[in-house]
Amino acid sequence: MERFLGKKIYGQKVAIEGQELKHLKVKRIKAGELLEVLTQEGWFLCKFEGFQKDLGICQIVERIEYTPRFPTITLYQCTPVHLKTMEDVIVGVSQAGAHRLVPVISERSFRDKKTILEKLPRWEKLSLESLKQCGRREPLIVDHPVELSKLETTSDLNLVLDNYQEGLKIKDLRLEGVKSISLVVGPEGGFSSKEVQMLKDKGFIALRLEPYTYRLEAASLVAVAILTNLV
Amino acid sequence: MERFLGKKIYGQKVAIEGQELKHLKVKRIKAGELLEVLTQEGWFLCKFEGFQKDLGICQIVERIEYTPRFPTITLYQCTPVHLKTMEDVIVGVSQAGAHRLVPVISERSFRDKKTILEKLPRWEKLSLESLKQCGRREPLIVDHPVELSKLETTSDLNLVLDNYQEGLKIKDLRLEGVKSISLVVGPEGGFSSKEVQMLKDKGFIALRLEPYTYRLEAASLVAVAILTNLV
Repeated sequence: MERFLGKKIYGQKVAIEGQELKHLKVKRIKAGELLEVLTQEGWFLCKFEGFQKDLGICQIVERIEYTPRFPTITLYQCTPVHLKTMEDVIVGVSQAGAHRLVPVISERSFRDKKTILEKLPRWEKLSLESLKQCGRREPLIVDHPVELSKLETTSDLNLVLDNYQEGLKIKDLRLEGVKSISLVVGPEGGFSSKEVQMLKDKGFIALRLEPYTYRLEAASLVAVAILTNLV
Repeated sequence: MERFLGKKIYGQKVAIEGQELKHLKVKRIKAGELLEVLTQEGWFLCKFEGFQKDLGICQIVERIEYTPRFPTITLYQCTPVHLKTMEDVIVGVSQAGAHRLVPVISERSFRDKKTILEKLPRWEKLSLESLKQCGRREPLIVDHPVELSKLETTSDLNLVLDNYQEGLKIKDLRLEGVKSISLVVGPEGGFSSKEVQMLKDKGFIALRLEPYTYRLEAASLVAVAILTNLV
């Protein structure tokens, strides 16, 4: 079934507008067809009624319930110096099932918090677009940036992808009963050894990927995907 | 240590030329520095001697021996209709440790064998460039295209990534003692159900990735990476 992003709900109706309206037209959706529409209030199964001025009008048939996936994975991604790489990270880990992405400021990361904040709307939009492609029920949450030194072990399992190729193999993790995972991934140049030590001292478990050195965007995708597929 | 691609070996020397010579200059490699150089005869630890006309001359110190990784993974990748996507696949599965990539012609794949053959030199070049980044010892082999109907179960473990989300979870595979894996991945539109059935009838085991629908280039990267990291 085709999936669209809706805006406001008016009683038993949802309006589709803007870019999504164009998609509706490109895909030649006809009156009477069933669609899935995501609004800020959740997913709805809808019947398409037709166009009214610059809106596509959908009749709500029913709310679509879903159970969130466990464990929830929060990716603490040190912001790539090539900011554009964050877009690949978002598309990748959205497919792989991460719950939340937090841009992190570290020694070798992109460091201007103001610019990161300006990028958030674009990154949130990408997260929504990716949701339609990969079939998620809830968008990957893109959060506000934080400093690496502020990270704490707040999840059941707290991991750092060690770019010094030390630490546990990912298959040796015990995931039974784990409801939440934090995963910290470095920027293009990796963490400094001081940073890795700081995270280990705080209780983050160092983890390594086999067999070679991954590019940043592949590393976070692969790490999240392995965690999701090992559960 | 910096790594370069060499061409011919002259006695105890290797010459670096062309694009690689430019890299040598950009990275300001100085006479006396140690380098790793890949030639068609394998890897060599070399001492850089200096420039001679349009060549960078390296003295061979010793051959670098390495043990190939097991299991070897051959990715039978149905050729993406957007041929450019194959480049992402190559870079991805090279990092993830695939041994060989075979472009496959299937119902919904790119189907012009002649054009694929013309692309092979470019794809082999990408494989070599990726090797330098990810630290592999041997390049991902990019092979000649084959028809999907010609595939046989020639490995210890023969898998097809099922786009109908059926089949085993990847964590439920038994990998002990497996020395070779074939993995078949569909094109952008996936396999037809007839094609999946044909592969199953031949003995390929259907496999699925959790939790969402991956884009082609992410699917092959993630599948190869999980196999490599589960061993």
